[in-house]
Amino acid sequence: MKKDKISSAVIRRLPRYYRHLSDLSHQGVIRISSSALGKSMNLTASQIRQDLSCFGEFGQQGYGYNVESLRKEVADILGMTQGHTAVVLGAGNLGRALLENFHFECSGVQLTAAFDISPELIGHSVSGVPIYSIDELENYLSRHPTSIGVLTVPGSVAGEMSERLIAGGVKGLWNFTNSELHVEGAGIVVENVHFADSLLALSYFISESL
Amino acid sequence: MKKDKISSAVIRRLPRYYRHLSDLSHQGVIRISSSALGKSMNLTASQIRQDLSCFGEFGQQGYGYNVESLRKEVADILGMTQGHTAVVLGAGNLGRALLENFHFECSGVQLTAAFDISPELIGHSVSGVPIYSIDELENYLSRHPTSIGVLTVPGSVAGEMSERLIAGGVKGLWNFTNSELHVEGAGIVVENVHFADSLLALSYFISESL
Repeated sequence: MKKDKISSAVIRRLPRYYRHLSDLSHQGVIRISSSALGKSMNLTASQIRQDLSCFGEFGQQGYGYNVESLRKEVADILGMTQGHTAVVLGAGNLGRALLENFHFECSGVQLTAAFDISPELIGHSVSGVPIYSIDELENYLSRHPTSIGVLTVPGSVAGEMSERLIAGGVKGLWNFTNSELHVEGAGIVVENVHFADSLLALSYFISESL
Repeated sequence: MKKDKISSAVIRRLPRYYRHLSDLSHQGVIRISSSALGKSMNLTASQIRQDLSCFGEFGQQGYGYNVESLRKEVADILGMTQGHTAVVLGAGNLGRALLENFHFECSGVQLTAAFDISPELIGHSVSGVPIYSIDELENYLSRHPTSIGVLTVPGSVAGEMSERLIAGGVKGLWNFTNSELHVEGAGIVVENVHFADSLLALSYFISESL
């Protein structure tokens, strides 16, 4: 793999490749040309070839791509085979939406626990995931090494919670709080989910199309 | 405005500009140089100048940008002053998380109603937004022209719901269902929120940093 060269734009497209390749694999497609893959993804064949060439030589001239091996390779590149584990902080509406409806395991991530401050939630489980008191966080992380902390807490405590997660050994923060996190420490990765950015992009495209 | 030339990457950065400019404006900053704006956004000064030049001439050599007029201009470009209105379809956990915690009005969008099938929800309000029966959708849209439909329904009904919204005059779909929507009709815009894509990007960056 030539990881050094990979642009952020290519990384952002990889999950889409993964989804399309999974769909194709489920449909029983064995191999596919770059032009057919591109057509189904609204990309040009040369864009596909260029993207995938960042990671090595998967396709063969005149043969196309083997769907299942490319899918596995993309999964590997995306870190889906690294055994990442996650905890959710905040079991309010959004936290519960993730616990109940989002399939972490489909992204190669094992969701092991949730934490909240509400006495009505602590001690219960949602979709088989136990909800603990936030007071138990440090104790839990020391016994269960965890790579990802999901922040669905109020923005006012996002900073404090991220510090506690990082002190507990978490490597990545999936941040739904709309607060900018100023993370200290080497190798800590933050992925922000900004609903507003998405809605504003939609607003732009609607306004442009009128 | 030279809209034709604007790349998707620039559009995707505009909401971040808007957020940063709003913060600066709240902090009382009157004007800012492209290098200072770039520093706060982790972009280079030349990137900033290049991005903003797509929309016309805002900055002045040696003066920088007037924060408030640039903020207003970006808001205008993003369609925030178009009076967009929205309805939410599906008042489950994710729908309620949006109704309770997401400030549509901060993106220039007025959220007017939600729709669900659950008798326990219909007739109630969440954060002042009334929840109607999905059977009322067509009637409601005919009386209240609506630009945006927010899909927080199960993926199995996403296609049917998007068709009903479009038939009712909706111009844009904000799709949280993880289903690919195949939308017919000119000028209909779909913005997908794929949680999995975001988690997989995080997974990649964690794996890369180890």
